[in-house]
Amino acid sequence: MEKQAGVMSGVRILDLTRVLAGPYCGMMLADFGADVIKIEMPGKGDDSRANAPQVNGESAYFMNLNRNKRGITLNLKTDEGRKIFLDMVKESDIVLENYRPGVMEKLGLGYENLRKANPAIIYGAVSGFGHTGPYSKRAGYDIIGQAMSGLMSTTGWPDTPPTRTGTAIADVVGGMSCAIGVLAAYVNRLKTGIGEKVDVSLVDSMVSSLEIINIIYLCSGRIPTRIGNRYESIYPYDSFQANDGYVIIACGNDKLFGLLKDTVQIHQLDNEKFSSNIKRVENHAELKSIIESWTRDLSIDHIVELLLAAGIPSAPINTIDRVTKDPHIAVAREMFVDIEHPVAGKTTLTGNQVKFTNKKATIRTPAPTLGQHNYEILKELFNYSDEKIDELINNGIL
Amino acid sequence: MEKQAGVMSGVRILDLTRVLAGPYCGMMLADFGADVIKIEMPGKGDDSRANAPQVNGESAYFMNLNRNKRGITLNLKTDEGRKIFLDMVKESDIVLENYRPGVMEKLGLGYENLRKANPAIIYGAVSGFGHTGPYSKRAGYDIIGQAMSGLMSTTGWPDTPPTRTGTAIADVVGGMSCAIGVLAAYVNRLKTGIGEKVDVSLVDSMVSSLEIINIIYLCSGRIPTRIGNRYESIYPYDSFQANDGYVIIACGNDKLFGLLKDTVQIHQLDNEKFSSNIKRVENHAELKSIIESWTRDLSIDHIVELLLAAGIPSAPINTIDRVTKDPHIAVAREMFVDIEHPVAGKTTLTGNQVKFTNKKATIRTPAPTLGQHNYEILKELFNYSDEKIDELINNGIL
Repeated sequence: MEKQAGVMSGVRILDLTRVLAGPYCGMMLADFGADVIKIEMPGKGDDSRANAPQVNGESAYFMNLNRNKRGITLNLKTDEGRKIFLDMVKESDIVLENYRPGVMEKLGLGYENLRKANPAIIYGAVSGFGHTGPYSKRAGYDIIGQAMSGLMSTTGWPDTPPTRTGTAIADVVGGMSCAIGVLAAYVNRLKTGIGEKVDVSLVDSMVSSLEIINIIYLCSGRIPTRIGNRYESIYPYDSFQANDGYVIIACGNDKLFGLLKDTVQIHQLDNEKFSSNIKRVENHAELKSIIESWTRDLSIDHIVELLLAAGIPSAPINTIDRVTKDPHIAVAREMFVDIEHPVAGKTTLTGNQVKFTNKKATIRTPAPTLGQHNYEILKELFNYSDEKIDELINNGIL
Repeated sequence: MEKQAGVMSGVRILDLTRVLAGPYCGMMLADFGADVIKIEMPGKGDDSRANAPQVNGESAYFMNLNRNKRGITLNLKTDEGRKIFLDMVKESDIVLENYRPGVMEKLGLGYENLRKANPAIIYGAVSGFGHTGPYSKRAGYDIIGQAMSGLMSTTGWPDTPPTRTGTAIADVVGGMSCAIGVLAAYVNRLKTGIGEKVDVSLVDSMVSSLEIINIIYLCSGRIPTRIGNRYESIYPYDSFQANDGYVIIACGNDKLFGLLKDTVQIHQLDNEKFSSNIKRVENHAELKSIIESWTRDLSIDHIVELLLAAGIPSAPINTIDRVTKDPHIAVAREMFVDIEHPVAGKTTLTGNQVKFTNKKATIRTPAPTLGQHNYEILKELFNYSDEKIDELINNGIL
């Protein structure tokens, strides 16, 4: 059994988070074997339970982000609900929440109160703008994180407006940053016994992700903007049209460009205009159209196969259907995993991207139905009787 | 002094990584107070030392990703270099590398060999495709991670090709996933004494980040594609043209749309076509043009101020210059931090996005110059004499 246990086995996490950023953080830790207890409002639960797509009335959106968690309901707007929560905090290692800043304090459940109940508690919070600063109380959505950080201003084409990345990347990067923070704080707690509050915002997380883009402006005063898929300093390093979609070809140096010329055998490429990387960057539009005169008549898979065989970095621009069927991604790397859900039946979830050699991350249980583990958890933690739990349910506390 | 120490103080990390994904991972842990020792090839160092932009001959790209690290040179292609490295592994907690899979094994420094030297070592690897599976030996660049995961196929506009996100998001998300993995493995090691190998790929990391996008296809068979900035299920929740750029307006429900109508006072909005969210989604193009007839004549800041005052979620689509000067992001949240570099002079770096309450992440020291801490580290770890270190340098080992 120990070989099956994950790296976070034995760690208890109370997960008050909703929708995406916070639940993604809890999901990572649950995949690693932590006992993540999702706490939801009685009767309603996480808003994302209503999100599309639904399978037999269960949200696949919710099922992916909350697998491996156990679930209870608890009404934190009641005195008794708050008392039960504080008792749970005493028995736990980490609390996660993604309310708007101030909500937990208004409930009497801010970090200062939780640390009174348990000085070693790690408190992880994700919000749009963070718990300090002038914008802290503003509503924060993924698209607002992408917009305010500058990411959208650099995504897209010279003739398009600023562009949102096609996934909720600010939510995901915010959730990952929170996971990094609570894990590092928990390392410190194991050594010192001292707890910590971890405050992560979607906007800050995306600012960090912009890395060299910020640095270009800060060092040179030039404002980075939208240039499509090409890189500013290397060519060809771009997307090209195939007969069934698009491929990436990446020739970082003269040697790789030479291999490309040998492979495609187009005499226009033997031109002074393309004789060095600097010249190729200058003449990128012309070079792209010559390369596309070759790629346009071939399939994605054929081009990638030819180029990889010749030692030239290349990749398909996969559509989502191709990704889910890819033998490397889906099968060898187990990035899509089937699980049986009691209501939805067999559903396919995203695998965990962190591959441990000894204690693997696993998908063990489906997401909980609302309040599924009320009896199990309250008996386990506090030895409550069935009668007491029935009464809490009848009174709207659970 | 203890109050100044970070949550990862006392943890020693050997950082063999180059360019972006791996260095980002080491940077996070260094910001948290870990002793991160960057190990580079003598004479040459990390490739990104040559990357633009340069300040007084120092790469700002490199300086951001390697702040707070100490640096030594070590030639791992020599027997003596490998022996010194294995001696360092015995004195360390975590090793990070982002070579192409197989390179460390060829050097005799794969996980199996490192665990012989130190069974408790945590080995974190980031690569394009991971250490297992049929594509494992392919070259992996950020754009390849964005392409193969399906992210590019869902980013952009109905009339544009698949689009790269405007930062190296696959590198960043890969680096974050590796940080999550090594921290979780280190938690396990503190409890059990057992080490772990953590294998993260750029492609897997982006597949995980796609979340609901994958799930839409897996549940419904519909392939998500490019729809610009709007959301499929809510409107208005989109970008709109202002007279000096673009703003986000997000009305998630009828109440917020009512507030928007009260604020903008355009009689065309009082139309049966826009009377419910479902109808607003159906008629999104017409609704966008009506809203833009109002936004187009106003400045970003004016629109955001008016809408926020009315309780309507709104945000500027910031360009990078605006982000770096924003009073919340840059000042209150400290997402841009000045530091003095011995060669480059005063430079501005990105702050860390994880805000701890008790033991803050800090930027304490600039990135090392090549081999800057050769003497300091080899004396500290092994008590080498100046003469011995001189000799190692003369022999090309350091």
